[in-house]
Amino acid sequence: MTQAYDNRPIGVFDSGLGGLTVLKDIMQRLPAENTLYFGDSGRMPYGSKSVETVTRFSLQNMRFLLDQDVKMIVIACNTASSRAYATIRNNSPVPVIEVIEPGSREAVRQSENGRIGVIGTQGTIDSQVYIKTIEKLSDKPVEIFQQACPLFVSLAEEGWWDHPVTRDVARIYLEPLLSRHIDALVLGCTHYPLLSSVIKSIAGPSVRLIHSGAAVAAVIEQTLKRTESLNNGQKPAVHAYFTSDSVRRFQTLSSLFLDQPITDIQHVDIEQYSCDALQSD
Amino acid sequence: MTQAYDNRPIGVFDSGLGGLTVLKDIMQRLPAENTLYFGDSGRMPYGSKSVETVTRFSLQNMRFLLDQDVKMIVIACNTASSRAYATIRNNSPVPVIEVIEPGSREAVRQSENGRIGVIGTQGTIDSQVYIKTIEKLSDKPVEIFQQACPLFVSLAEEGWWDHPVTRDVARIYLEPLLSRHIDALVLGCTHYPLLSSVIKSIAGPSVRLIHSGAAVAAVIEQTLKRTESLNNGQKPAVHAYFTSDSVRRFQTLSSLFLDQPITDIQHVDIEQYSCDALQSD
Repeated sequence: MTQAYDNRPIGVFDSGLGGLTVLKDIMQRLPAENTLYFGDSGRMPYGSKSVETVTRFSLQNMRFLLDQDVKMIVIACNTASSRAYATIRNNSPVPVIEVIEPGSREAVRQSENGRIGVIGTQGTIDSQVYIKTIEKLSDKPVEIFQQACPLFVSLAEEGWWDHPVTRDVARIYLEPLLSRHIDALVLGCTHYPLLSSVIKSIAGPSVRLIHSGAAVAAVIEQTLKRTESLNNGQKPAVHAYFTSDSVRRFQTLSSLFLDQPITDIQHVDIEQYSCDALQSD
Repeated sequence: MTQAYDNRPIGVFDSGLGGLTVLKDIMQRLPAENTLYFGDSGRMPYGSKSVETVTRFSLQNMRFLLDQDVKMIVIACNTASSRAYATIRNNSPVPVIEVIEPGSREAVRQSENGRIGVIGTQGTIDSQVYIKTIEKLSDKPVEIFQQACPLFVSLAEEGWWDHPVTRDVARIYLEPLLSRHIDALVLGCTHYPLLSSVIKSIAGPSVRLIHSGAAVAAVIEQTLKRTESLNNGQKPAVHAYFTSDSVRRFQTLSSLFLDQPITDIQHVDIEQYSCDALQSD
């Protein structure tokens, strides 16, 4: 039996730089895959915006990626995953992967005392999506404590990843969770791993930081294998980057984060893409 | 000769809460005027977004205000004033007032040593609009020093107006300007007066803080008098508030800032308003 391949890129989108934390794990686990990243920094943050707005933005991001002929769409953004996943999945001709279930599964696996903290944008926290998903996945009782951290995305997009100010902000946000003796902390926003050294130093060694990147990369690999859509690996992988904001700023910060010079970055006028849903959730 | 009046409201828009600092001065100077405020918190910040995006947002805000039958549009946002004023003015059937020229004029008037600092969003700073305007208005040589303060808008929208973190951030942003011995500091973003107690304490008594609110209110009064459009003052003034984000958060913070309970706040789905320019700049 012949194995089929699909050399088209994996499409990844996020409200800005945060999805790079997921992309990094995808590139590490699946080095033969071409990738195409869209960071919607021009419309960030998503976390404070309404369900309708986030859904509209996500549909436009999907259209852009489909126009680039991707073989899969990864919603590397918790806010968009919690608010627009079903709509995107119902409208996409290619498989769609979200980030909340893989991260929740990881939290259930890693927590020993069943006391799990979740931090995220206001939108993700208000949606209670992590509470519902973790409770569904856990076969023992769990207690979940949530905290919105609205300034984290702005600090991450500003590049203040290991900065005294970020440390002070993290202390303020995390204190209420740490006082509840959590032993696992879900970074429920893909921007937060950019701040992980600060978060780790505040949370201390007894708290495991859960970020979904590695788990998402594993789900992607399973899906590509199941659908016989892996890259055949005969050419070096190509990674392309697009942003709705300043290319210069995106370049500086993405190169720093991915620890390699990123040069192929293009600006996208994302508003020109249609946001008509073929079918709503 | 009979004096004509116009009792329709003055329409004011900003990317969020910042324009309230201008509204407060308008209400103080023109207590008989009805006002209608739109804060676009759902799409803030404007400062990092492209000229095209800010222009599109501003046109939608204009359409919304015109739909409410306002007699004047006040762009109470420096980023939108610097990027979209000409387009708005060319498309509006009612007078349009912006905030940059009044603030610049005030800076020229108040600086004694001709060394003026300007802080603003990345977009306002990159546009160099304050440098051009202040140089045009000054009849003696001036030296202008600029600094972008990207986190200030997020801190203001978060309500951290007099907070240790805001103090640290302000120290980092202001230090390079203070070392140049400025004696006037233009708050080139209408959000910044919300942080003025922190900014004042860092800048010290030898630096005058310039914010454009009072000067803008004076320009509005002149324009209404010239066009015979003042309110006849026969009924108590009505003040209405609209936001594209959470009404609850807007209510808490706006009441705090205006120092009176604000109850008449409505949510607006701003994306439904057309952004077609009748005529571009």
